Amino acid sequence: MINETYREMLKKKSVIRELSEAATERGKEIGYENVFDYSLGNPSVPVPQRFTDTMIELLETKNPMELHGYSPSLGIPSVKEKLAKSLNERFGMDYKPSDLFMTSAAASAIAHALRAVTEPGDEVMIFAPYFPEYIPYVTGAGCKIVVVPADTETFQINFGKMKELINPNVKAVLINTPNNPTGVVYSEETIKTLADILRAKSREFGFDIYLISDEPYREIVFEGVVAPYVSKYYDHSISCYSYSKSLSLPGERIGYIAVNPADPESTTIATMCGQISRGTGHNCPSSIIQLAVAEVCDMTSDLSVYETNMNILYNELVSLGFKVVKPGGTFYIYPQALEDDAVAFCKKALKYDLVLVPADSFACPGYFRMAYCIDTEKVKRSIAALRKFVETEYPSR
Amino acid sequence: MINETYREMLKKKSVIRELSEAATERGKEIGYENVFDYSLGNPSVPVPQRFTDTMIELLETKNPMELHGYSPSLGIPSVKEKLAKSLNERFGMDYKPSDLFMTSAAASAIAHALRAVTEPGDEVMIFAPYFPEYIPYVTGAGCKIVVVPADTETFQINFGKMKELINPNVKAVLINTPNNPTGVVYSEETIKTLADILRAKSREFGFDIYLISDEPYREIVFEGVVAPYVSKYYDHSISCYSYSKSLSLPGERIGYIAVNPADPESTTIATMCGQISRGTGHNCPSSIIQLAVAEVCDMTSDLSVYETNMNILYNELVSLGFKVVKPGGTFYIYPQALEDDAVAFCKKALKYDLVLVPADSFACPGYFRMAYCIDTEKVKRSIAALRKFVETEYPSR
Repeated sequence: MINETYREMLKKKSVIRELSEAATERGKEIGYENVFDYSLGNPSVPVPQRFTDTMIELLETKNPMELHGYSPSLGIPSVKEKLAKSLNERFGMDYKPSDLFMTSAAASAIAHALRAVTEPGDEVMIFAPYFPEYIPYVTGAGCKIVVVPADTETFQINFGKMKELINPNVKAVLINTPNNPTGVVYSEETIKTLADILRAKSREFGFDIYLISDEPYREIVFEGVVAPYVSKYYDHSISCYSYSKSLSLPGERIGYIAVNPADPESTTIATMCGQISRGTGHNCPSSIIQLAVAEVCDMTSDLSVYETNMNILYNELVSLGFKVVKPGGTFYIYPQALEDDAVAFCKKALKYDLVLVPADSFACPGYFRMAYCIDTEKVKRSIAALRKFVETEYPSR
Repeated sequence: MINETYREMLKKKSVIRELSEAATERGKEIGYENVFDYSLGNPSVPVPQRFTDTMIELLETKNPMELHGYSPSLGIPSVKEKLAKSLNERFGMDYKPSDLFMTSAAASAIAHALRAVTEPGDEVMIFAPYFPEYIPYVTGAGCKIVVVPADTETFQINFGKMKELINPNVKAVLINTPNNPTGVVYSEETIKTLADILRAKSREFGFDIYLISDEPYREIVFEGVVAPYVSKYYDHSISCYSYSKSLSLPGERIGYIAVNPADPESTTIATMCGQISRGTGHNCPSSIIQLAVAEVCDMTSDLSVYETNMNILYNELVSLGFKVVKPGGTFYIYPQALEDDAVAFCKKALKYDLVLVPADSFACPGYFRMAYCIDTEKVKRSIAALRKFVETEYPSR
């Protein structure tokens, strides 16, 4: 007998997948370079050469039994030492290597963090619009989701709604800044207010609410914007990081958890993650990838293309009359669709070879997401298609 | 609040870890080359050069965005095509690429397979002595364990006890051949009898019991021994494979699930694994490791050293009067200790710089495991220590 829950999950058609398949089909007809595919968050700039050089050097010089041998389940100690040092220097933190746990990128980091600070049946608070995979992460830990509706004017946190919805069953709050799908960076004021509320509610409820901070876009921040380091503002915080975006390594599945050393249980939580892994079958990320990433942990890919693309798209969307908040980072932008039904809107866009993602699955319907991690030249070419789409389909605007 | 289940797990002292720490300490005193460490299953022969060459070639020639880009959650299609072809040629199977799911080695494969064919609350049957991580794998899927006691004369399956214990709550049976910790390879007769019982019980209970076959040692089989391919004998079977041992890549976390195409649900089960991953945070193994392993999927490391080591140890153990079943494969041997308390026995051995693992955690107490994946020269040097240990501590034997 097959598990019925997972079998049911197979039946749900993903709109993103349908769009992506349509784009692939169209690409076969007119050449993929002529399909303006804004659907996927796959980085479009290469990993720094030093990563590649380090990989080759490790392969050429290291004893293969050591190089490819078992990593301790919590991560390779020399790697965690380098990462802790880097975080401490960059953010003025005081992480010990034992506060870190190496993970298979952010998905694994969040899945572990959630299991570490909740019991099955607890509630986890998330903020719309949110990355849709948060749902399986939270339900996979046996918890329920409490969704705070979006503040669509700013896409900062809707604190009024947050205060209404927080309750003693909420053991953890999960945020994502810079944000997928909005591209918005939470301001220092937002994070301070969030921390104040969590402290007050922790006192009221009699336990520490944990703040899980999903930070894969931490390094993709645009000119004039400051992305505060979340853990500086709240002691009971867990930073979940991934090198997928900053180093353009999404397929190598590498990231970490860093538990705030101000939390008296920081090392216990990080160490518990090794126990959590035993039951989920995760184990460690690849040894060679751990070693190579540690060598470039203070570097990023050349991320400037994302800001260039954002400015082109933002200006064009504004001039076309879209309601849109200017992104402060990431490679996403999140305008309001030109009709209430964003799915219908995105299906019409397909006729113009524009692949846009309707935001219904982000729990903030009526909007759509564009992932502009593509060549700037292609972004420029897409502008004519965007204009034609809007002018033809929504002429009265 | 921290999860209490995982916090409790931290308190359990692992005997293997204690021994390993003692060995490390002793190594600092007398040099690690003089500590006869038989505790860890870390391969002692290098990965084939072609793997290393392929890795370097991929790094030097492939577009890094493609090379390190997201793998589909079920695995890279070209990789699964090569692996299916290889399995079909080697074992006369008929796997489609869609029957395969790429995993982070065997741990992940088993964790996924269990979740795919059980519901929480179901029972999973395992056979003593067993790899102790089977417990978190099964309990992590929300299931209960039914342990069939060992047949200590042969370490094949104790079918009498199996028939007594199997019941309609058992939805899956998990086996491991060649076996850790015994080194025994299940004979064709054993697998045929097992399959017959499963078919009869499936009919009786009204559903198909799944056979999950954990096969990381499939390629480490000694002269004169045949290791039958389990899935040839039972339709409702899932092969869980890892390249950790056969290619000496334990740190790279790479393996797969292959669902028997004779099962009408084979592709559904493999596809469901992608849904299961969403909740456990596993996602795919590293892209570059998938690609490189596919190039060497018909190769193994030079595994002959394990047989050489086994013969030296087996002969010596027999001549010292140990009761021991001759291993047919793997790099383990599993003799009976010279006193009832195998922990006490192994602690005494430490005084002679011999690191042996008491088998209490394998649910077959009174035995100990030696992992002879070490240099043959060191195995030879250990013989004098073994003799001295036995003659000094157990002189009356």
